[in-house]
Amino acid sequence: MISDGMGPASETMARSYVQYLYSTNSSVSGTSRPLLNETAFADLTSGFEGRADGAGRLPLDDILVGTSRTRSSNSLITDSAAGATAFACTLKTYNGGIGITPSRSPCGTILEAAKRQGFSTGLVATSRLTHATPASFYAHVPDRDLESEIARFLVGEAGTGLKGLPVDIALGGGACFFRPNGTSSSCRTDDEDLLERARGKGVKVLEGMAALRGFRDEDAQDAPVLGLFADDHMAYEIDRQVATTLADEQPSLREMTMQALKHLAERGSRGKGFFLMVEGSRIDMAGHNNDPVAHVSDMLAYQQTVAYVRKWVEEQNEAGTPTMLVSVSDHETGGLALGRQLGEEYPEYLWYPDVLFRATRSTSYLGELFASRYPAATRDWVVSELFNKGLGINDTARWEVDEVWTERTNAYRANRALADAISRRAQVGWSTAGHSGVDVNLYSAGYNSTGLSGNVENTDVGLHIAHNMVRRCRALLLPLLRPPHPASLCLAPLRPRALLSTVKRSKVP
Amino acid sequence: MISDGMGPASETMARSYVQYLYSTNSSVSGTSRPLLNETAFADLTSGFEGRADGAGRLPLDDILVGTSRTRSSNSLITDSAAGATAFACTLKTYNGGIGITPSRSPCGTILEAAKRQGFSTGLVATSRLTHATPASFYAHVPDRDLESEIARFLVGEAGTGLKGLPVDIALGGGACFFRPNGTSSSCRTDDEDLLERARGKGVKVLEGMAALRGFRDEDAQDAPVLGLFADDHMAYEIDRQVATTLADEQPSLREMTMQALKHLAERGSRGKGFFLMVEGSRIDMAGHNNDPVAHVSDMLAYQQTVAYVRKWVEEQNEAGTPTMLVSVSDHETGGLALGRQLGEEYPEYLWYPDVLFRATRSTSYLGELFASRYPAATRDWVVSELFNKGLGINDTARWEVDEVWTERTNAYRANRALADAISRRAQVGWSTAGHSGVDVNLYSAGYNSTGLSGNVENTDVGLHIAHNMVRRCRALLLPLLRPPHPASLCLAPLRPRALLSTVKRSKVP
Repeated sequence: MISDGMGPASETMARSYVQYLYSTNSSVSGTSRPLLNETAFADLTSGFEGRADGAGRLPLDDILVGTSRTRSSNSLITDSAAGATAFACTLKTYNGGIGITPSRSPCGTILEAAKRQGFSTGLVATSRLTHATPASFYAHVPDRDLESEIARFLVGEAGTGLKGLPVDIALGGGACFFRPNGTSSSCRTDDEDLLERARGKGVKVLEGMAALRGFRDEDAQDAPVLGLFADDHMAYEIDRQVATTLADEQPSLREMTMQALKHLAERGSRGKGFFLMVEGSRIDMAGHNNDPVAHVSDMLAYQQTVAYVRKWVEEQNEAGTPTMLVSVSDHETGGLALGRQLGEEYPEYLWYPDVLFRATRSTSYLGELFASRYPAATRDWVVSELFNKGLGINDTARWEVDEVWTERTNAYRANRALADAISRRAQVGWSTAGHSGVDVNLYSAGYNSTGLSGNVENTDVGLHIAHNMVRRCRALLLPLLRPPHPASLCLAPLRPRALLSTVKRSKVP
Repeated sequence: MISDGMGPASETMARSYVQYLYSTNSSVSGTSRPLLNETAFADLTSGFEGRADGAGRLPLDDILVGTSRTRSSNSLITDSAAGATAFACTLKTYNGGIGITPSRSPCGTILEAAKRQGFSTGLVATSRLTHATPASFYAHVPDRDLESEIARFLVGEAGTGLKGLPVDIALGGGACFFRPNGTSSSCRTDDEDLLERARGKGVKVLEGMAALRGFRDEDAQDAPVLGLFADDHMAYEIDRQVATTLADEQPSLREMTMQALKHLAERGSRGKGFFLMVEGSRIDMAGHNNDPVAHVSDMLAYQQTVAYVRKWVEEQNEAGTPTMLVSVSDHETGGLALGRQLGEEYPEYLWYPDVLFRATRSTSYLGELFASRYPAATRDWVVSELFNKGLGINDTARWEVDEVWTERTNAYRANRALADAISRRAQVGWSTAGHSGVDVNLYSAGYNSTGLSGNVENTDVGLHIAHNMVRRCRALLLPLLRPPHPASLCLAPLRPRALLSTVKRSKVP
């Protein structure tokens, strides 16, 4: 499992947020708060209810085993492509490279190695399925922006030497990269209809929540399943929960993961087991916007998914099926700090989690709402709909409203101004709209959960999984914790048919 | 061992700094760089020399066992007093409280408990010995600023019910709080001459490097040793190394620790063992100034001390003397982020460690130098002495020089402007001059090094040490990792003679 962009401070922030909610001096109780009252977040309550103020713990807190060093082959700050390739290929590559070495040769991934061993494979993400993190497990392109090409790998149109498709069940967003250019919701650079091609190969394509809920494993038999629940990325969790229509259209990360586990366990029982990658993709994107509200709510969606998977893994192990859970981030996003000095005066030592749960929307949503309503939207509308209703801020300063109003035709910049307004009130700091270089937390539970611990390289995470999953490779792998180690010893090199360097860059929405 | 103010990003920063120094594309090699060529830092080279670029590791990296949650009883962001009291008394108290409960009752500390068990005890710090962290192990006052009163505890003038003094060897800074008001280098609020009192009780007082180096354990016999090597805090490591006079006056953290270990091991061999607290105090203060140079160099001084202690502890265990090393921070300082966006444009994913080692001085030193030289100092002097020579910055912008020049009578603010200039060039961010709330790293080696691991409460760190050291208390302690736990079950409550609430506040320099 990958919590994209969740740094050490993010984990502390999410825990303190829920601790405050359940504390005796909280102005809203845990059970009355809509966000946590959702069935989706019910798994979190066990760590907090009945515990002393400040003593509650999140599902990940109980299974911390170490930290992961994240630098890529060409920078102290990795991007998600190099970060995921480190896990997938167990080697460091350059920022932007997807399943590819620094010298631009395709590298075999642990997902592909699993497939070759007869395992079933799955991917779940809340981003486009063609986005950097999931892509690095099944595609091999020199640039993460080549999403039209990446999509071809997922439906078996770009070859990896595997028999059949690389992924048996893939659930997430990004339908637009599977639809031919010219149709209304396409972002492909060519007119290939990849969904049609996929169906032609027997792939069971699920579009929308109803299709997912109506799906029965026996419908697919052994055919691959491709579920697409949004044209672009799926919604931030806080927006999904608030909007009834969205919640009807888009499953939660937990629901997708439950479906994938069920499907893979069923397939796995007939084969050698399975490999599943689950990504909380938009924790990162909220970090890019410096939006603490969307950052926390997507982390809680991830944490409740972890709670479900932990329990599921425990049951598998108890039933005699060795099953391992590893959770890690690829990098930190935003340079989040829990403490922010607002003026020249020496700061008080505190920050305010209560500010965050007065908000009901991501700042990204509010920025787009503003742009879509303008010119009808007035300054008063900005105050009432964006600040008051959207962020729960009722003490706006004139200059703050000005800052948002100025950006009335730029949804992104309006979003950033709103994110700053709520971050200042919560007294949390951000240093960048990009990533940062801090080591990230490493978590593990289930089979051999102590097999990888301490401060490790991100490539060690992939090696650890390969080591435990692809058993015949064991002898080839040197002990994990003695770097430098030979990367990808047991992963066969791959040669995609396409000449990678000649693939044209596509436009990404 | 306590790395005051060292957060997760700090550890990554220090590692990347040395990795860069030893990398093949570094413009200065590890061995030619004066800072690392010092004998003091020699212990660090083994983790880097001969390793691939980017694969080097610091002494702490090898012994990471978990993370520590730092909130105090009254805030999500602790100060050093509550942070150290959590370790010392194994309970959460309010910010500012020294060895005291939230209801202002004195609490027994693990140092005092060790003493009661017949162990020898020691304290080493680069701050004043009366500063919050060391003070929390031997003093009991309601406010960390009461350093005149705190000093009385160290020399046995304020009672803790112990026979004799609480600390057998204490080495660090802060002589001014032991000298009577009215003498030139005193910061006491009264005219007590605590050094005289201490000598009267047989305490061996060491003032300055020569006294430390000339000291032989047999000189002291079983008398307590008090070594004071600066009136105020000791110098930042980078300033100490550059200034020959300072290096002659002030020992490094490593040298003090070596002396303390030698002394305590000698005493311990005649008793039941020993408890030693070693603090890298000024890692924190560099963080308060947002000075990445002093922050890194004090971390390296701490790391090389860890390297020495790790080896020493290993030898003790091999020789059959169970010895445990625990290293942890009390909190993060500064909200450090390894990545900083400098303008509106989307940031590149990188930061520049090379910028940091062009600097030769702490910004704090440079700020004071400026104030001391003005009005003789000119704008040209600011550029050549502060920016060029001090920080290795040769591309100053006019506005940057203006910012420093404006603060020519305010050493602190000039220091902050200089710290910002070098932080911007390194592209590292800071969110505050205070502390932040992120969980901090926990390290352990030697005896029972895996006894405490995962994500724990800071109070668990103290409980773990008490549990392993004070053996007869074992039965009373509930399992460490199941909060809420009863705090300080095995630590006897103490009642100092002084009426704490009536002690007057003192001025702190």
